[in-house]
Amino acid sequence: MHRTLATLSVIFALALAATAASADPLPSWRQGETKTRIIEFVDSVTDPASEHFVPQAARIATFDNDGTLWAEQPVYFQFLFAIDKLKKMAADDPAVLTSDILRAAAGGDMETVAAAGEAGILEIVATTHSGMTVEEFQAEVREWLEQARHPKTGMAYDDMIYQPMLELLSYLRDEGFRTYIASGGGLHFIRVFSEDAYNIPPEQVIGSTGNATYTAEDGAPRIMKDPGLFFLDDKEGKPLAIETRIGRRPVIAVGNSDGDFQMLEWTTAGDGARLGILLHHTDAEREFAYDRDSHAGKLARGLDEAGDRGWMLIDMAKDWDKIWPGGN
Amino acid sequence: MHRTLATLSVIFALALAATAASADPLPSWRQGETKTRIIEFVDSVTDPASEHFVPQAARIATFDNDGTLWAEQPVYFQFLFAIDKLKKMAADDPAVLTSDILRAAAGGDMETVAAAGEAGILEIVATTHSGMTVEEFQAEVREWLEQARHPKTGMAYDDMIYQPMLELLSYLRDEGFRTYIASGGGLHFIRVFSEDAYNIPPEQVIGSTGNATYTAEDGAPRIMKDPGLFFLDDKEGKPLAIETRIGRRPVIAVGNSDGDFQMLEWTTAGDGARLGILLHHTDAEREFAYDRDSHAGKLARGLDEAGDRGWMLIDMAKDWDKIWPGGN
Repeated sequence: MHRTLATLSVIFALALAATAASADPLPSWRQGETKTRIIEFVDSVTDPASEHFVPQAARIATFDNDGTLWAEQPVYFQFLFAIDKLKKMAADDPAVLTSDILRAAAGGDMETVAAAGEAGILEIVATTHSGMTVEEFQAEVREWLEQARHPKTGMAYDDMIYQPMLELLSYLRDEGFRTYIASGGGLHFIRVFSEDAYNIPPEQVIGSTGNATYTAEDGAPRIMKDPGLFFLDDKEGKPLAIETRIGRRPVIAVGNSDGDFQMLEWTTAGDGARLGILLHHTDAEREFAYDRDSHAGKLARGLDEAGDRGWMLIDMAKDWDKIWPGGN
Repeated sequence: MHRTLATLSVIFALALAATAASADPLPSWRQGETKTRIIEFVDSVTDPASEHFVPQAARIATFDNDGTLWAEQPVYFQFLFAIDKLKKMAADDPAVLTSDILRAAAGGDMETVAAAGEAGILEIVATTHSGMTVEEFQAEVREWLEQARHPKTGMAYDDMIYQPMLELLSYLRDEGFRTYIASGGGLHFIRVFSEDAYNIPPEQVIGSTGNATYTAEDGAPRIMKDPGLFFLDDKEGKPLAIETRIGRRPVIAVGNSDGDFQMLEWTTAGDGARLGILLHHTDAEREFAYDRDSHAGKLARGLDEAGDRGWMLIDMAKDWDKIWPGGN
């Protein structure tokens, strides 16, 4: 009896070890060059015997959010939140619509809004993202995420996250990496769902920030969101913010648009082994197909220079077996 | 023989357990109300059976640096670095001295510099903290720390750190806290020594920042330090920066001056158990004695309101058995 148990234990232990060795850390990534290169890179920086070994404290991976961890079409989801909120504000008090842009946005005239470009977006964001505390703002975002649905997929926005990226995040963490978000989107907006969606805690979210004020009237300290942009975490802003926030150059940077170019450039210019990854949206059927001509997530320079710079391009249609966690 | 070994093992294990139970986490803190209150607070937020229990992810402690973790008299050490560097710059090229303040500072006329107040300090910092990459700046700070000695103690500046605070940092980390610096001093300056001195990694340093630019000329990405202040992490700036950087309200905040007032105010206004601590410099013999009238580390409002707000005051002369790690 004892002998049988001991034998069974050994067999069981061997079976477990074999499973662990052969377990696929990226099951939703199809076999091929992309997946192989990622795994080989991670092996090379985590194996103490490797010449490319990176100590655990330096294992930093930064991920863009819009179009990299979750979808960004037809427009950035945070902007859809802003429009929905503006409509609600206007229904309560039409006097908030103080400009043609705001009236157009509240009236659903997205052509006029689009024609106004970045200035229009900033005005809409300033109007809808200020005049309240951080907690109040985040409660509104939480409520919106629970109710709003994507016009094409009918899915909740925070379900439109990429299963293969969840696996990559989790795999990197298992290998001793700390995973950060470095997004052009709003810091306070992203923190509402980053922990549930990606297992990324608030202190590992880097994003754009608006002006803010600390007040302590009547003994009640508050952090108020004010109009106006304080820091835009996009393009050159990404390496600047990563340096300020983390103080270490990432080993891996993952993005999908030219807004991520400088983050990848700075990352892969570091000493030792570094990996830059761009997600190319090639899957019109299961997700969206866009690059050079898209106003959200425009990818042109990255596409042109990825080869010369040694950056990986993920071909979504070809490399990913599954897009959404719940679906296919 | 085997029996003797087994008996010895049991005795040894019991002895170890007893040592662990009675080990003093704060040996350089004298027995008394201050030490007891800190330990009781930490017990209350880390004991799962306690009504004040705080989950590990939320256990954040923020520490001011100047005057809280290391000394700050006769003036902030970073300012002494700036003066030393300005003298060196002027010796190489007197043309860098473009104003009366800069000429006074390089000539050692500290009365004129002091009379110029904050504007004078900012001009000296802008001149000495810009025009180079972050790495170049940090190499200069490292070299200065190795060579410069404090005018009163003759010690290296990064040896003038408080042994009781090192024990508090270490104790809190052992109890599942993450320890952050939240300093009015420069982020890039502090990161040079924070890991060696306090075991606080770069991503857990919050500090003031100057303007910066990302450039990538000739394929060599650089983060350049530019003149001008981008963010002053002092007073209202501390809670704002902590919210931006961590996204959680601290459970414990430790400071020593009115520049830390808002950090303690915001911390202790949070739900559940919170602790605000101010270090009162009362020890003219072993360190320095100063509060209301000091230009570095002025403590007036904090002293007046600590009692009503339930903040602890550490009396350095009375509560600390030892000041410096190497000395007494």
